[in-house]
Amino acid sequence: MKPHEIEQKSMEIITKELGDRTFQEPEFSVIKRCIHTSADFDYADNLKFSSQSVRQGIEAIKRGAHIVTDTNMAFAGINKGVLGRFGGEAHCFMADEDVALEAKERGVTRSTICMERGANLSGEIIFAIGNAPTALIRICELIEEGKIKPALVIGAPVGFVNVLESKERLLSMKDVPYIVAGGRKGGSNIVAAICNAMLYEAKKEEASERV
Amino acid sequence: MKPHEIEQKSMEIITKELGDRTFQEPEFSVIKRCIHTSADFDYADNLKFSSQSVRQGIEAIKRGAHIVTDTNMAFAGINKGVLGRFGGEAHCFMADEDVALEAKERGVTRSTICMERGANLSGEIIFAIGNAPTALIRICELIEEGKIKPALVIGAPVGFVNVLESKERLLSMKDVPYIVAGGRKGGSNIVAAICNAMLYEAKKEEASERV
Repeated sequence: MKPHEIEQKSMEIITKELGDRTFQEPEFSVIKRCIHTSADFDYADNLKFSSQSVRQGIEAIKRGAHIVTDTNMAFAGINKGVLGRFGGEAHCFMADEDVALEAKERGVTRSTICMERGANLSGEIIFAIGNAPTALIRICELIEEGKIKPALVIGAPVGFVNVLESKERLLSMKDVPYIVAGGRKGGSNIVAAICNAMLYEAKKEEASERV
Repeated sequence: MKPHEIEQKSMEIITKELGDRTFQEPEFSVIKRCIHTSADFDYADNLKFSSQSVRQGIEAIKRGAHIVTDTNMAFAGINKGVLGRFGGEAHCFMADEDVALEAKERGVTRSTICMERGANLSGEIIFAIGNAPTALIRICELIEEGKIKPALVIGAPVGFVNVLESKERLLSMKDVPYIVAGGRKGGSNIVAAICNAMLYEAKKEEASERV
Protein backbone atom coordinates (compact mmCIF):
# COMPACT_ATOMS: atom_id res chain seq x y z
CA MET A 1 0.00 0.00 0.00
CA LYS A 2 1.26 3.46 -0.90
CA PRO A 3 1.18 6.30 1.65
CA HIS A 4 -1.80 8.02 0.01
CA GLU A 5 -3.71 4.74 -0.05
CA ILE A 6 -2.97 4.20 3.64
CA GLU A 7 -4.22 7.69 4.38
CA GLN A 8 -7.40 7.14 2.38
CA LYS A 9 -8.03 3.81 4.10
CA SER A 10 -7.41 5.43 7.50
CA MET A 11 -9.94 8.16 6.79
CA GLU A 12 -12.48 5.50 5.77
CA ILE A 13 -11.92 3.62 9.03
CA ILE A 14 -12.31 6.83 11.06
CA THR A 15 -15.52 7.73 9.21
CA LYS A 16 -16.89 4.23 9.73
CA GLU A 17 -16.13 4.24 13.45
CA LEU A 18 -17.90 7.55 13.87
CA GLY A 19 -20.98 5.55 12.83
CA ASP A 20 -24.23 7.38 12.32
CA ARG A 21 -22.91 10.71 13.46
CA THR A 22 -22.96 13.36 10.78
CA PHE A 23 -20.57 16.26 10.46
CA GLN A 24 -20.60 19.14 8.05
CA GLU A 25 -17.81 19.82 5.61
CA PRO A 26 -15.27 21.32 5.58
CA GLU A 27 -15.24 20.95 9.38
CA PHE A 28 -15.32 17.16 9.04
CA SER A 29 -12.03 17.11 7.15
CA VAL A 30 -10.43 18.95 10.10
CA ILE A 31 -11.97 16.57 12.65
CA LYS A 32 -10.87 13.50 10.71
CA ARG A 33 -7.30 14.72 10.36
CA CYS A 34 -7.06 15.43 14.10
CA ILE A 35 -8.21 11.87 14.83
CA HIS A 36 -5.84 10.57 12.15
CA THR A 37 -2.82 12.22 13.79
CA SER A 38 -3.67 11.18 17.36
CA ALA A 39 -5.93 8.10 17.13
CA ASP A 40 -7.93 10.00 19.74
CA PHE A 41 -11.65 10.06 18.98
CA ASP A 42 -12.21 12.80 21.55
CA TYR A 43 -11.56 15.18 18.69
CA ALA A 44 -14.95 14.24 17.23
CA ASP A 45 -16.47 16.08 20.17
CA ASN A 46 -14.07 18.65 21.46
CA LEU A 47 -13.28 20.80 18.44
CA LYS A 48 -15.16 24.09 18.46
CA PHE A 49 -15.58 26.13 15.29
CA SER A 50 -16.89 29.63 14.92
CA SER A 51 -19.38 29.91 12.06
CA GLN A 52 -17.63 29.24 8.73
CA SER A 53 -14.18 29.40 10.33
CA VAL A 54 -12.76 26.46 8.38
CA ARG A 55 -14.08 27.93 5.13
CA GLN A 56 -12.54 31.28 6.10
CA GLY A 57 -9.22 29.58 6.82
CA ILE A 58 -9.23 27.78 3.46
CA GLU A 59 -10.05 30.97 1.57
CA ALA A 60 -7.33 32.88 3.43
CA ILE A 61 -4.82 30.17 2.49
CA LYS A 62 -5.89 30.47 -1.14
CA ARG A 63 -5.24 34.22 -0.97
CA GLY A 64 -1.71 33.59 0.33
CA ALA A 65 -2.18 33.92 4.09
CA HIS A 66 0.81 33.19 6.32
CA ILE A 67 0.70 30.82 9.26
CA VAL A 68 2.36 31.85 12.54
CA THR A 69 2.79 29.16 15.17
CA ASP A 70 4.24 29.03 18.67
CA THR A 71 5.72 25.55 18.31
CA ASN A 72 8.65 24.30 16.28
CA MET A 73 7.05 20.88 16.06
CA ALA A 74 3.90 22.29 14.45
CA PHE A 75 6.12 24.36 12.15
CA ALA A 76 7.90 21.13 11.14
CA GLY A 77 4.57 19.41 10.51
CA ILE A 78 2.76 22.09 8.52
CA ASN A 79 2.92 21.33 4.80
CA LYS A 80 4.93 24.35 3.72
CA GLY A 81 5.04 23.16 0.11
CA VAL A 82 1.27 23.43 -0.28
CA LEU A 83 1.18 26.70 1.66
CA GLY A 84 3.85 28.09 -0.66
CA ARG A 85 1.82 27.21 -3.78
CA PHE A 86 -0.61 29.90 -2.71
CA GLY A 87 2.11 32.36 -1.72
CA GLY A 88 1.98 31.84 2.03
CA GLU A 89 4.81 31.12 4.44
CA ALA A 90 4.91 29.42 7.82
CA HIS A 91 6.70 31.17 10.68
CA CYS A 92 7.84 30.11 14.11
CA PHE A 93 10.06 32.53 15.99
CA MET A 94 10.49 30.39 19.12
CA ALA A 95 14.11 29.43 18.46
CA ASP A 96 15.27 32.96 17.56
CA GLU A 97 17.93 34.23 19.93
CA ASP A 98 16.63 37.78 19.98
CA VAL A 99 13.21 36.47 20.97
CA ALA A 100 14.74 34.79 24.02
CA LEU A 101 16.60 38.01 24.83
CA GLU A 102 13.56 40.26 24.56
CA ALA A 103 11.47 37.82 26.60
CA LYS A 104 14.05 37.90 29.38
CA GLU A 105 14.34 41.69 29.32
CA ARG A 106 10.59 42.22 29.47
CA GLY A 107 9.89 39.33 31.85
CA VAL A 108 7.38 37.67 29.52
CA THR A 109 7.36 34.30 27.76
CA ARG A 110 9.10 33.69 24.46
CA SER A 111 5.68 32.69 23.11
CA THR A 112 4.37 36.18 23.85
CA ILE A 113 7.19 37.76 21.84
CA CYS A 114 6.68 35.26 19.02
CA MET A 115 3.08 36.34 18.62
CA GLU A 116 4.11 39.99 18.57
CA ARG A 117 6.62 39.20 15.82
CA GLY A 118 3.86 37.46 13.91
CA ALA A 119 1.57 40.44 14.40
CA ASN A 120 4.13 42.63 12.65
CA LEU A 121 4.06 40.57 9.46
CA SER A 122 2.21 42.06 6.54
CA GLY A 123 -0.64 40.27 4.82
CA GLU A 124 -3.28 37.92 6.19
CA ILE A 125 -2.26 35.76 9.11
CA ILE A 126 -3.53 32.51 10.58
CA PHE A 127 -2.28 32.19 14.16
CA ALA A 128 -1.85 28.55 15.15
CA ILE A 129 -1.26 28.05 18.88
CA GLY A 130 -0.36 24.52 19.94
CA ASN A 131 1.66 25.02 23.06
CA ALA A 132 1.55 28.17 25.14
CA PRO A 133 -1.54 29.68 26.77
CA THR A 134 0.45 32.93 26.98
CA ALA A 135 0.70 33.00 23.18
CA LEU A 136 -3.06 32.66 22.86
CA ILE A 137 -3.70 35.30 25.50
CA ARG A 138 -1.33 37.74 23.74
CA ILE A 139 -3.22 37.19 20.48
CA CYS A 140 -6.51 37.98 22.23
CA GLU A 141 -4.98 41.15 23.69
CA LEU A 142 -3.61 42.29 20.33
CA ILE A 143 -7.05 41.79 18.78
CA GLU A 144 -8.73 43.71 21.59
CA GLU A 145 -6.20 46.51 21.21
CA GLY A 146 -7.17 46.71 17.53
CA LYS A 147 -3.63 45.90 16.46
CA ILE A 148 -4.41 42.73 14.49
CA LYS A 149 -7.35 41.17 12.75
CA PRO A 150 -6.34 37.55 12.13
CA ALA A 151 -7.82 35.57 9.26
CA LEU A 152 -8.19 32.73 11.76
CA VAL A 153 -7.01 31.82 15.26
CA ILE A 154 -6.35 28.16 16.00
CA GLY A 155 -6.44 27.88 19.79
CA ALA A 156 -5.07 24.49 20.74
CA PRO A 157 -2.56 24.86 23.57
CA VAL A 158 -2.37 21.55 25.42
CA GLY A 159 -2.03 21.07 29.11
CA PHE A 160 -3.01 21.55 32.66
CA VAL A 161 -2.19 25.12 33.70
CA ASN A 162 -3.90 28.24 32.26
CA VAL A 163 -4.93 26.31 29.16
CA LEU A 164 -8.70 26.32 29.76
CA GLU A 165 -8.66 30.01 30.70
CA SER A 166 -6.84 31.01 27.51
CA LYS A 167 -9.30 29.08 25.36
CA GLU A 168 -12.30 30.56 27.20
CA ARG A 169 -10.93 34.00 26.47
CA LEU A 170 -10.72 33.31 22.74
CA LEU A 171 -14.17 31.70 22.71
CA SER A 172 -15.69 34.77 24.38
CA MET A 173 -14.45 37.14 21.68
CA LYS A 174 -16.78 38.47 19.03
CA ASP A 175 -16.05 38.45 15.31
CA VAL A 176 -12.87 36.42 15.61
CA PRO A 177 -12.83 33.31 13.39
CA TYR A 178 -11.56 30.45 15.55
CA ILE A 179 -10.96 26.74 15.73
CA VAL A 180 -10.47 25.63 19.33
CA ALA A 181 -9.50 22.25 20.76
CA GLY A 182 -11.71 22.16 23.84
CA GLY A 183 -10.60 21.28 27.34
CA ARG A 184 -7.00 20.38 28.01
CA LYS A 185 -6.36 18.76 24.68
CA GLY A 186 -4.52 20.11 21.67
CA GLY A 187 -0.81 20.28 20.93
CA SER A 188 1.60 20.64 18.08
CA ASN A 189 0.37 17.57 16.23
CA ILE A 190 -3.24 18.81 16.44
CA VAL A 191 -2.32 22.30 15.24
CA ALA A 192 -0.37 20.85 12.31
CA ALA A 193 -3.29 18.54 11.49
CA ILE A 194 -5.78 21.43 11.50
CA CYS A 195 -3.54 23.52 9.24
CA ASN A 196 -2.86 20.61 6.90
CA ALA A 197 -6.54 19.69 6.63
CA MET A 198 -7.24 23.22 5.39
CA LEU A 199 -4.17 23.20 3.13
CA TYR A 200 -5.16 19.92 1.46
CA GLU A 201 -8.72 21.17 1.04
CA ALA A 202 -7.43 24.37 -0.57
CA LYS A 203 -5.22 22.32 -2.90
CA LYS A 204 -8.10 20.01 -3.83
CA GLU A 205 -10.41 22.93 -4.55
CA GLU A 206 -7.72 24.65 -6.60
CA ALA A 207 -7.24 21.49 -8.67
CA SER A 208 -10.97 21.11 -9.32
CA GLU A 209 -11.33 24.78 -10.20
CA ARG A 210 -8.65 24.32 -12.84
CA VAL A 211 -10.46 21.47 -14.60
CA MET B 1 4.46 31.54 36.50
CA LYS B 2 7.64 30.59 34.69
CA PRO B 3 7.70 27.74 32.15
CA HIS B 4 9.47 25.34 34.51
CA GLU B 5 6.97 26.14 37.27
CA ILE B 6 4.09 25.47 34.89
CA GLU B 7 5.65 22.16 33.96
CA GLN B 8 6.13 21.20 37.60
CA LYS B 9 2.56 22.16 38.45
CA SER B 10 1.31 20.18 35.43
CA MET B 11 3.19 17.07 36.54
CA GLU B 12 1.67 17.45 40.02
CA ILE B 13 -1.83 17.67 38.56
CA ILE B 14 -1.23 14.58 36.42
CA THR B 15 0.12 12.64 39.39
CA LYS B 16 -2.85 13.69 41.51
CA GLU B 17 -5.38 12.69 38.88
CA LEU B 18 -3.80 9.27 38.58
CA GLY B 19 -4.94 8.88 42.18
CA ASP B 20 -3.96 5.78 44.06
CA ARG B 21 -2.30 4.12 41.13
CA THR B 22 1.38 3.51 41.58
CA PHE B 23 3.97 3.44 38.87
CA GLN B 24 7.65 2.62 39.05
CA GLU B 25 10.37 5.06 38.17
CA PRO B 26 11.86 5.81 35.74
CA GLU B 27 8.88 4.50 33.72
CA PHE B 28 6.58 6.96 35.52
CA SER B 29 8.51 9.95 34.21
CA VAL B 30 7.90 8.69 30.66
CA ILE B 31 4.19 8.09 31.32
CA LYS B 32 3.74 11.54 32.85
CA ARG B 33 5.47 13.30 29.97
CA CYS B 34 3.29 11.49 27.41
CA ILE B 35 0.18 12.64 29.29
CA HIS B 36 1.67 16.13 29.61
CA THR B 37 2.13 16.44 25.85
CA SER B 38 -1.29 15.08 24.88
CA ALA B 39 -3.58 15.58 27.88
CA ASP B 40 -4.56 12.01 27.11
CA PHE B 41 -4.66 9.79 30.20
CA ASP B 42 -4.79 6.67 28.03
CA TYR B 43 -1.01 6.78 28.19
CA ALA B 44 -1.21 5.70 31.83
CA ASP B 45 -2.39 2.33 30.55
CA ASN B 46 -1.16 1.81 27.04
CA LEU B 47 2.59 2.22 27.30
CA LYS B 48 4.44 -1.09 27.31
CA PHE B 49 8.00 -1.35 28.55
CA SER B 50 10.37 -4.26 28.29
CA SER B 51 12.16 -4.92 31.56
CA GLN B 52 14.45 -2.00 32.45
CA SER B 53 14.02 -0.43 29.00
CA VAL B 54 13.73 3.15 30.27
CA ARG B 55 16.81 2.66 32.44
CA GLN B 56 18.64 1.21 29.42
CA GLY B 57 17.59 4.20 27.32
CA ILE B 58 18.81 6.67 29.93
CA GLU B 59 22.14 4.91 30.29
CA ALA B 60 22.57 4.78 26.50
CA ILE B 61 21.91 8.53 26.32
CA LYS B 62 24.54 9.09 29.01
CA ARG B 63 27.02 7.13 26.92
CA GLY B 64 26.31 9.36 23.91
CA ALA B 65 23.74 7.31 21.99
CA HIS B 66 22.19 8.85 18.87
CA ILE B 67 18.46 9.05 18.27
CA VAL B 68 17.09 8.19 14.83
CA THR B 69 13.47 9.08 14.14
CA ASP B 70 11.12 8.71 11.18
CA THR B 71 9.33 12.01 11.72
CA ASN B 72 10.51 15.56 11.26
CA MET B 73 8.09 16.71 13.94
CA ALA B 74 9.62 14.39 16.53
CA PHE B 75 13.06 15.52 15.38
CA ALA B 76 11.97 19.12 15.98
CA GLY B 77 10.65 18.24 19.42
CA ILE B 78 13.54 16.17 20.76
CA ASN B 79 15.76 18.26 23.03
CA LYS B 80 18.92 18.17 20.97
CA GLY B 81 20.73 20.45 23.39
CA VAL B 82 20.50 17.93 26.22
CA LEU B 83 21.27 15.04 23.86
CA GLY B 84 24.37 16.91 22.66
CA ARG B 85 25.65 17.37 26.24
CA PHE B 86 26.24 13.64 26.32
CA GLY B 87 27.67 13.51 22.79
CA GLY B 88 24.59 12.22 20.97
CA GLU B 89 22.89 13.59 17.89
CA ALA B 90 19.33 13.33 16.61
CA HIS B 91 18.78 12.28 13.02
CA CYS B 92 15.80 12.30 10.71
CA PHE B 93 16.46 11.50 7.07
CA MET B 94 12.85 11.84 5.87
CA ALA B 95 13.35 15.12 4.00
CA ASP B 96 16.57 14.06 2.23
CA GLU B 97 16.19 14.08 -1.54
CA ASP B 98 18.30 10.98 -2.06
CA VAL B 99 16.08 9.11 0.41
CA ALA B 100 13.04 9.93 -1.73
CA LEU B 101 14.95 8.84 -4.84
CA GLU B 102 16.10 5.51 -3.41
CA ALA B 103 12.61 4.79 -2.06
CA LYS B 104 11.14 5.34 -5.50
CA GLU B 105 13.76 3.20 -7.22
CA ARG B 106 13.31 0.30 -4.81
CA GLY B 107 9.54 0.66 -4.46
CA VAL B 108 9.66 0.98 -0.67
CA THR B 109 8.67 3.80 1.69
CA ARG B 110 10.97 6.67 2.55
CA SER B 111 10.65 5.56 6.17
CA THR B 112 12.20 2.22 5.29
CA ILE B 113 15.21 3.92 3.73
CA CYS B 114 15.49 6.29 6.70
CA MET B 115 15.85 3.40 9.09
CA GLU B 116 18.51 1.82 6.89
CA ARG B 117 20.42 5.10 6.94
CA GLY B 118 20.12 5.14 10.70
CA ALA B 119 21.34 1.55 10.87
CA ASN B 120 24.53 2.61 9.10
CA LEU B 121 25.45 5.15 11.77
CA SER B 122 28.20 4.18 14.14
CA GLY B 123 27.74 4.10 17.90
CA GLU B 124 24.73 3.23 19.99
CA ILE B 125 21.34 4.06 18.49
CA ILE B 126 17.87 4.64 19.90
CA PHE B 127 15.31 4.22 17.13
CA ALA B 128 12.24 6.37 17.74
CA ILE B 129 9.33 5.56 15.43
CA GLY B 130 6.37 7.92 15.63
CA ASN B 131 4.82 7.70 12.23
CA ALA B 132 5.41 4.82 9.85
CA PRO B 133 4.69 1.14 10.54
CA THR B 134 7.06 0.36 7.66
CA ALA B 135 9.89 2.03 9.60
CA LEU B 136 9.21 -0.13 12.63
CA ILE B 137 8.96 -3.28 10.53
CA ARG B 138 12.28 -2.50 8.82
CA ILE B 139 13.91 -2.11 12.24
CA CYS B 140 12.57 -5.50 13.31
CA GLU B 141 13.92 -7.04 10.10
CA LEU B 142 17.35 -5.49 10.53
CA ILE B 143 17.52 -6.84 14.09
CA GLU B 144 16.46 -10.31 12.94
CA GLU B 145 19.06 -10.20 10.19
CA GLY B 146 21.67 -9.46 12.87
CA LYS B 147 22.56 -6.15 11.25
CA ILE B 148 21.72 -3.91 14.19
CA LYS B 149 21.40 -4.19 17.94
CA PRO B 150 19.60 -1.00 19.03
CA ALA B 151 20.08 0.41 22.49
CA LEU B 152 16.30 0.90 22.52
CA VAL B 153 13.39 0.84 20.07
CA ILE B 154 10.53 3.25 20.66
CA GLY B 155 7.60 1.82 18.72
CA ALA B 156 4.91 4.48 18.58
CA PRO B 157 3.58 4.78 15.05
CA VAL B 158 0.07 6.21 15.21
CA GLY B 159 -2.86 5.23 13.09
CA PHE B 160 -5.27 2.80 11.62
CA VAL B 161 -3.48 0.72 8.99
CA ASN B 162 -0.68 -1.78 9.75
CA VAL B 163 0.08 0.00 13.03
CA LEU B 164 -1.04 -2.76 15.40
CA GLU B 165 0.76 -5.42 13.34
CA SER B 166 4.05 -3.52 13.41
CA LYS B 167 3.86 -3.09 17.18
CA GLU B 168 2.98 -6.76 17.70
CA ARG B 169 6.06 -7.70 15.72
CA LEU B 170 8.31 -5.61 17.95
CA LEU B 171 6.63 -6.90 21.12
CA SER B 172 7.20 -10.49 20.03
CA MET B 173 10.96 -10.06 19.68
CA LYS B 174 13.34 -11.35 22.31
CA ASP B 175 16.15 -9.35 23.87
CA VAL B 176 15.15 -6.08 22.25
CA PRO B 177 14.68 -3.21 24.72
CA TYR B 178 11.45 -1.47 23.75
CA ILE B 179 8.96 1.18 24.73
CA VAL B 180 5.70 0.74 22.81
CA ALA B 181 2.59 2.90 22.67
CA GLY B 182 -0.08 0.24 22.56
CA GLY B 183 -3.00 0.09 20.18
CA ARG B 184 -3.44 2.78 17.57
CA LYS B 185 -1.98 5.57 19.63
CA GLY B 186 1.41 7.20 19.44
CA GLY B 187 2.73 9.86 17.11
CA SER B 188 5.48 12.40 16.81
CA ASN B 189 4.53 14.24 20.02
CA ILE B 190 4.56 10.99 21.99
CA VAL B 191 7.92 9.92 20.57
CA ALA B 192 9.42 13.31 21.39
CA ALA B 193 7.93 13.13 24.90
CA ILE B 194 9.39 9.67 25.52
CA CYS B 195 12.83 10.79 24.32
CA ASN B 196 12.69 14.00 26.32
CA ALA B 197 11.61 12.22 29.51
CA MET B 198 14.73 10.07 29.27
CA LEU B 199 16.90 13.05 28.32
CA TYR B 200 15.73 15.11 31.30
CA GLU B 201 16.22 12.12 33.60
CA ALA B 202 19.77 11.66 32.28
CA LYS B 203 20.46 15.35 32.81
CA LYS B 204 19.06 15.25 36.34
CA GLU B 205 21.12 12.19 37.24
CA GLU B 206 24.26 13.76 35.74
CA ALA B 207 23.70 16.89 37.83
CA SER B 208 23.22 14.91 41.04
CA GLU B 209 26.24 12.72 40.29
CA ARG B 210 28.33 15.89 40.03
CA VAL B 211 27.30 17.19 43.43
